[in-house]
Amino acid sequence: MAFTHQHLLGLEGVSRDELLYLIDQAAQFKEISERDIKKVPTLRGKTVVSLFYEASTRTRTSFEIAAKRLSADYVGIASSTSSSTKGETLLDTARNIAAMRPDALVVRHSAAGAPHFLAQRIDCPVINAGDGAHEHPTQALLDLLTIRDRLGRLDDLTVAIVGDILHSRVTRSNVHALRALGARIRLVGPPTLLPVEATSWGEVHHDLRSGIRDADVIMMLRLQRERQGRNFLPSLDEYSRYFCLTRAALEAARPDAVVLHPGPINRGVEIASDVADGAASLIMDQVTNGVAVRMAVLFLLTSRVRQAAADAAGAMIEEPQPERLRRSVG
Amino acid sequence: MAFTHQHLLGLEGVSRDELLYLIDQAAQFKEISERDIKKVPTLRGKTVVSLFYEASTRTRTSFEIAAKRLSADYVGIASSTSSSTKGETLLDTARNIAAMRPDALVVRHSAAGAPHFLAQRIDCPVINAGDGAHEHPTQALLDLLTIRDRLGRLDDLTVAIVGDILHSRVTRSNVHALRALGARIRLVGPPTLLPVEATSWGEVHHDLRSGIRDADVIMMLRLQRERQGRNFLPSLDEYSRYFCLTRAALEAARPDAVVLHPGPINRGVEIASDVADGAASLIMDQVTNGVAVRMAVLFLLTSRVRQAAADAAGAMIEEPQPERLRRSVG
Amino acid sequence: MAFTHQHLLGLEGVSRDELLYLIDQAAQFKEISERDIKKVPTLRGKTVVSLFYEASTRTRTSFEIAAKRLSADYVGIASSTSSSTKGETLLDTARNIAAMRPDALVVRHSAAGAPHFLAQRIDCPVINAGDGAHEHPTQALLDLLTIRDRLGRLDDLTVAIVGDILHSRVTRSNVHALRALGARIRLVGPPTLLPVEATSWGEVHHDLRSGIRDADVIMMLRLQRERQGRNFLPSLDEYSRYFCLTRAALEAARPDAVVLHPGPINRGVEIASDVADGAASLIMDQVTNGVAVRMAVLFLLTSRVRQAAADAAGAMIEEPQPERLRRSVG
Repeated sequence: MAFTHQHLLGLEGVSRDELLYLIDQAAQFKEISERDIKKVPTLRGKTVVSLFYEASTRTRTSFEIAAKRLSADYVGIASSTSSSTKGETLLDTARNIAAMRPDALVVRHSAAGAPHFLAQRIDCPVINAGDGAHEHPTQALLDLLTIRDRLGRLDDLTVAIVGDILHSRVTRSNVHALRALGARIRLVGPPTLLPVEATSWGEVHHDLRSGIRDADVIMMLRLQRERQGRNFLPSLDEYSRYFCLTRAALEAARPDAVVLHPGPINRGVEIASDVADGAASLIMDQVTNGVAVRMAVLFLLTSRVRQAAADAAGAMIEEPQPERLRRSVG
Repeated sequence: MAFTHQHLLGLEGVSRDELLYLIDQAAQFKEISERDIKKVPTLRGKTVVSLFYEASTRTRTSFEIAAKRLSADYVGIASSTSSSTKGETLLDTARNIAAMRPDALVVRHSAAGAPHFLAQRIDCPVINAGDGAHEHPTQALLDLLTIRDRLGRLDDLTVAIVGDILHSRVTRSNVHALRALGARIRLVGPPTLLPVEATSWGEVHHDLRSGIRDADVIMMLRLQRERQGRNFLPSLDEYSRYFCLTRAALEAARPDAVVLHPGPINRGVEIASDVADGAASLIMDQVTNGVAVRMAVLFLLTSRVRQAAADAAGAMIEEPQPERLRRSVG
Repeated sequence: MAFTHQHLLGLEGVSRDELLYLIDQAAQFKEISERDIKKVPTLRGKTVVSLFYEASTRTRTSFEIAAKRLSADYVGIASSTSSSTKGETLLDTARNIAAMRPDALVVRHSAAGAPHFLAQRIDCPVINAGDGAHEHPTQALLDLLTIRDRLGRLDDLTVAIVGDILHSRVTRSNVHALRALGARIRLVGPPTLLPVEATSWGEVHHDLRSGIRDADVIMMLRLQRERQGRNFLPSLDEYSRYFCLTRAALEAARPDAVVLHPGPINRGVEIASDVADGAASLIMDQVTNGVAVRMAVLFLLTSRVRQAAADAAGAMIEEPQPERLRRSVG
């Protein structure tokens, strides 16, 4: 098995075998960050450029550290300093970067589909670091690695995803991956934060305790404070009363259930502090594994071996984007 | 021949032989970015600092990638995070950086003459990455390299520079270089966007088609949207109707004419999309060549061989700046 | 002698021998920045992360250059782009960074005690790059190295610290160090800019000339313009008339007295231009020495030898922070 895609745009359509291959690769890279000399020459002479149109510490830093531990050159571009302030289109910005011959472009953008749009048009591997409410594939991969590290398996899991499902790209990537792995998925949240398609993803619950009952894995989602007071959410207090994962609520899950959160966490809003810092929490492991996952992805998409394999296998054809999307992000 | 200047502040006064030497050097560096391992140890242990007081993606990223592919350490300072917000003068900021022993300082500033002012006062090679409406020498060098790559020559060229000549540092650097190379220069734009000295640079045209007639090279300039509605420009629509380079207008030029633009482009304002993306357009080649030009410039200004040559030849004496300028940028 | 602390949080409690050891180490690193190849492989494969919640050019750049000249990977995080804008606590941000396995975390924060708070809670050496009005230890170390370089000694010094003592973290770090070294300390400034504890640090003077009379070292402090018009300061003009170090005022000090300033300087406010640029001024030497001091500190806190020594000696127990502080910065 291998991962022969040219880009990592999402986990939709990525097979079980490919997922396991990616996670196995990431597991091998984990050890490098535990060494005294945390660096291998693997990507020496490669250039990794990140282009972030949304604020980020965790993901951007994780990619930067991953690139540097592989000896790649890393160049970070943030939207505030970029030519987007001069009215340049996203595509023109990306084409300009591509003309400088990077070996990978890591993109975060508020528009769903932006990385796909670029991947079809520039000659450089594109890694989606979060696009709108669409996908965040490296986050889901690090979630899977973290679960497997602790529970020893990815088969036969019951996974409850709790919170603002509607706006969550983390959820969409995890749903694609967990379904490929045969997990039982539950989507838990107030009706206003659940998209209509949630019923096709798994069981829908509006009650926290019934939603996490006997779950192996609880994925808590960040509640964005700016949703408060809009139609989605009357108040944070109200939300917390029903959906905050407290120690008491956690007892509904299996005794060895694990708790994940993509961060940054809102203590006391969607997760109680003692749960976030407790024995069931894998939140810090997720961050540690994030570096390993990104090392694996950067390696697989930029290394020469992969390139040859991709050429042989035929590059993955990315699905075309609807005209509307092309217009909105181009 | 060699390039023995201590700084690269502008192309005014740089001789034909020096220009050709710089372009030849850049041509040699081009190949590195096409390798699988895009890195040479040439500037290992050198520190390149960029100090940008204006937003930039293209130029800043190009210098950063150039420095890293030469194995230099690159440190970027943007004005928004710098001590300038604490009221420190430009000169004091630069002196402080110089005290940390960088091997080159890349400066962009809105004040014409700022890099010259610093070059006279700090003990470190200074590279002008754009100063007000004055010069942007690496842009003109990459333009020349791009033209030579496509047309096979820099002799006997007819070059039309079109658009906002008045505010264009790219124009000034190109005019100096093109005159040294003996090109026929045409300046094309509405009267309000042509400086009085344009008539001494070349032929002035207020009509796009007559301006580009039989031209070998058309350099389109970015129209800054914020000029609209001021005295310079009644409206973008009005401007575009007369000066946008469309496919139809392009037919006035030679059949093998090439189109350049320093970017970021305003599609549909100064250049039509099909021209920007068409066969005559060298816009992406310019960006690719930009990395090579900056590698060459960083190499020539910081490498030991150059230092010895410069010592032997006597450092170039930069022309003194008028008192007014010193006050305004110090 | 050695420096076996796990963190560098402040100079309070650091012994004379430890200070001299740190300065001796820094002196050895100075020479690297004067080489043609300014780079040693000492910290290859180490990751240095800086987390700055306040604007900085000098200190941040100095740490970045120090890390890179030691071949460490450097990752800079500025508060404006960080998750702090998403409401994440300082501790959670730091824990997330720590989970990516950095070898040192350099922190600047407006809250006094923030680095101490983090050092107690994360498993990574923490370097205080300035916390509120509390400490700025690397600044005081570079001051000492600079004084010793010029005067040839650190014994038997009379040091006048002049200006806004109240808000100065530089003063606090220097007072701790200078007292450990047995210096005579004078605190000079208007009563509103002198904290009550100043009388326990040394002689208090409200007159510049009497304060610097026969001083070996004059440390001028930056006057923050935003203090003007508040209770501290009626006007900058008023302040300058009494406390600006002019050439005339400087005559009250010893003929070989040296002048330091942590920068950025306000020319004509706290220091006259001819003094800042004159023979007595060591301001640029301070900046040069800053890189060496930070190289030494990064080396001592991250190198393996130190780790072993620290394990053997027992890690320094940082003093617990009061509950109030924990709440405010957590």
